[in-house]
Amino acid sequence: MNHRMIRYIIGSLIQMEAALFLLPAFTALIYGEVTCIAAFLGSALFCVAGGHILKGKKPEDVTIFSSEGYVSVAICWIMLSICGAMPLYFSGYFPNPVDALFEIVSGFTTTGATILNDVEILPRSVLMWRSFSHWVGGMGVLVFMLALLPLSGGSSMYLMRAESPGPSVGKLVPKVRSTAKILYVIYFVMTVLELILLVLAGCPLFDSINLSFATAGTGGFGVLNSSAGDYNAAIQIILTVFMILFGVNFNVYFLVYSRNIRDAFRCEEARIYMGVIGASILLISVNTFSMFQGIGETLRHVAFQVASIITTTGFSTVDFELWPEFSRTILVVLMFVGACAGSTGGGIKVSRIAIMAKTIVKELSVMKHPRNVRKTWFEGKPVEHEVLRSINVFLIAYLGIFILSTLIISLDNFDGVTNFTAVASTINNIGPGLSRVGPTQNFSIYSNLSKLVLTFDMLAGRLEIFPMLIMCTAGFRGKRWS
Amino acid sequence: MNHRMIRYIIGSLIQMEAALFLLPAFTALIYGEVTCIAAFLGSALFCVAGGHILKGKKPEDVTIFSSEGYVSVAICWIMLSICGAMPLYFSGYFPNPVDALFEIVSGFTTTGATILNDVEILPRSVLMWRSFSHWVGGMGVLVFMLALLPLSGGSSMYLMRAESPGPSVGKLVPKVRSTAKILYVIYFVMTVLELILLVLAGCPLFDSINLSFATAGTGGFGVLNSSAGDYNAAIQIILTVFMILFGVNFNVYFLVYSRNIRDAFRCEEARIYMGVIGASILLISVNTFSMFQGIGETLRHVAFQVASIITTTGFSTVDFELWPEFSRTILVVLMFVGACAGSTGGGIKVSRIAIMAKTIVKELSVMKHPRNVRKTWFEGKPVEHEVLRSINVFLIAYLGIFILSTLIISLDNFDGVTNFTAVASTINNIGPGLSRVGPTQNFSIYSNLSKLVLTFDMLAGRLEIFPMLIMCTAGFRGKRWS
Repeated sequence: MNHRMIRYIIGSLIQMEAALFLLPAFTALIYGEVTCIAAFLGSALFCVAGGHILKGKKPEDVTIFSSEGYVSVAICWIMLSICGAMPLYFSGYFPNPVDALFEIVSGFTTTGATILNDVEILPRSVLMWRSFSHWVGGMGVLVFMLALLPLSGGSSMYLMRAESPGPSVGKLVPKVRSTAKILYVIYFVMTVLELILLVLAGCPLFDSINLSFATAGTGGFGVLNSSAGDYNAAIQIILTVFMILFGVNFNVYFLVYSRNIRDAFRCEEARIYMGVIGASILLISVNTFSMFQGIGETLRHVAFQVASIITTTGFSTVDFELWPEFSRTILVVLMFVGACAGSTGGGIKVSRIAIMAKTIVKELSVMKHPRNVRKTWFEGKPVEHEVLRSINVFLIAYLGIFILSTLIISLDNFDGVTNFTAVASTINNIGPGLSRVGPTQNFSIYSNLSKLVLTFDMLAGRLEIFPMLIMCTAGFRGKRWS
Repeated sequence: MNHRMIRYIIGSLIQMEAALFLLPAFTALIYGEVTCIAAFLGSALFCVAGGHILKGKKPEDVTIFSSEGYVSVAICWIMLSICGAMPLYFSGYFPNPVDALFEIVSGFTTTGATILNDVEILPRSVLMWRSFSHWVGGMGVLVFMLALLPLSGGSSMYLMRAESPGPSVGKLVPKVRSTAKILYVIYFVMTVLELILLVLAGCPLFDSINLSFATAGTGGFGVLNSSAGDYNAAIQIILTVFMILFGVNFNVYFLVYSRNIRDAFRCEEARIYMGVIGASILLISVNTFSMFQGIGETLRHVAFQVASIITTTGFSTVDFELWPEFSRTILVVLMFVGACAGSTGGGIKVSRIAIMAKTIVKELSVMKHPRNVRKTWFEGKPVEHEVLRSINVFLIAYLGIFILSTLIISLDNFDGVTNFTAVASTINNIGPGLSRVGPTQNFSIYSNLSKLVLTFDMLAGRLEIFPMLIMCTAGFRGKRWS
């Protein structure tokens, strides 16, 4: 392991975070929140100093390898979260450090699950920091750093792959740095567009900024206790559209950016994603029609909830806990499906699900006609054996973490639906679950141990399992068990 | 497809079922249950005649191939179930034909889920037929037929593989027919041994016969409403031991039979299986200790419940619905783990879980040390790529059926735990679930549509997914979708 290089990367990241604190600090200044100014600026100073010590001199050997990439990304996200929790703790609104950590990990991983009963008592700077953490975490903090820091190409590639490992990311343009920059420009433009539309629809500026950050990162932290329920219909429709848009594979926008509109519309993952959204809206609308007044209201609320869950944003306009079981079951399934790979959304990802479904169809056909050997195709290309293997390993590891987490948090003795959806909601980076962690509830019911397990799940889900697993097992060196 | 040969196999099987009806018919005779004598003998006559028409002449071409093996096995099980439901329906105790089908599929697949509120009102011949269906279905009806019918070796192999496809079955001895015979001899001897021990422990003879059939097949139909709760401690302990024994890979007994004791004790799957049982008993005992009087009673009840769930038998001595959530979560996990491959138990199977876990360990090690390429080892041999692929496909298909089933039965609007554990309990061939399908409840709450879905799940689970899937998709010929 190139320890010096890993330290250098982590140090740089923490120093970058100091810069990020300036936005909430500035918000605190505007609204005259004195304690918060101190909390954010103090944390920023600490990060600058700590980062400087950690960085040391720039190492001569700047190459890192695949395994170091995974470990670096995992440690980076943990350090980022610990530092990011500091101002929350010092603000006085999160007296339990575990709560502060849970909340900011929920922010950076774009989960949006909260441990607060009442978000409206929070100062505006803290609200801003929560939403901003969604925006920063959505596209990836290391991608952001890579856009700014000059690192060797190979090393950057390993870091970027470890942070955004979906089956179809990468190889957009040969140079990682320019890819990262283009992605952030697209991301920035879309966020600003949403912000303008929200303001035009009559949403207050402060709310609009926060909502735009949270939608862009598919996070879900709001500034009102009612989440998005108290905004007007136009605002809810704008949020629905942008949640869906931010759940699309960014390859599509990259193709649009490079004026390759035809290929953009051919993206198979995006089409399946849209199909799943359409089918879910239809089924749930039929099932819940009697609960709303008219088709328009039904479609608006159902589309909002479906978009919010499949993109793993986690906003809500109604309490879907009250919907019939069929609709709730569809929502739980969507929690696992998640958004497109290469988007800011979480979950298992549409492309993985689609490739798994196609594998079954192919294998059944092989069983029926053993001589008829075919390949599985996706996005117009045959799926490589390596990709299939990594999807299978992902699925098994995902299920393993899921089961173990559910088992540990069941020690708190809440009911099965609460525990199951709490884990589903955190590992898929959604926000609300069902029952006692439903859309009108929060995660404060759990013990510190459970909160830490769920915090781990949020990080594991955001980094798509492997970085966290490799970091956890880095201590055990190749015992000959398997 | 060799349709004539498939018809011949199905016809033979139905005629064999006519012979199976003689046991309950004889029971009805002893206890003077007139209607039941008529129901069983009438059904037997129908099966003899129907089977004769279906069989036709023995076809000249007796070879069938892999895909035909799957389809034949699926159709055989469905026909067997429909014919087996006839006497239940004609007995008058199952006025809804869907209920009769559900009940007998639950029998043959060794699930043990019932739609009856009160089993004690059933005539003894019907009780006997329910338990006997466990015994017949446990080792496999086609295996049984293969032991009797002379078929070509290759064809038998395909049928046997399709019926008992666990990763490690087959290749016991070169000749399938003698394998089938040896397996049935072991099975028979163990069942008789249990019967003798139960009678010695003070269990009534009729109950002992039924309990032995149900334990041997890891089924779970009892003759009392209290399942096994009203029997004395000695009987409960005997049942616990035999449930565990029937969940062991029959390869182990085969090795014992061929006096290869040392290899028998080396069976990795059996050792992991025992380890999982031991760990679960320990954890649940600590968690539920305060609910029982003393260590002895705790261990007895916990061991019984753990053995019953992991072997997918489904008996109960206490209502584990009242246990703390941690214990219930462990039981739900055990529902999915299931027993050893090559046993009469259901579930995903210990060997599949073990190989999946080892794959993760191996893949993590490859990610950490990319040059360190290793194979996954199981039972002292490297795991073939084909085996890994089939396990992965199994897992994906299993999850797919699981999700779709849960979605359909959620239309009945029961709570999530009920639906989730109803599907878990049927697809893993266990019997009881939790909440409204818990150990003191039954499946009569569901609509006919849901009962049919759960019936499909029982068959899919018993035949380990693929035969049912291939049969369902046999109509769609290789559309070029994947």
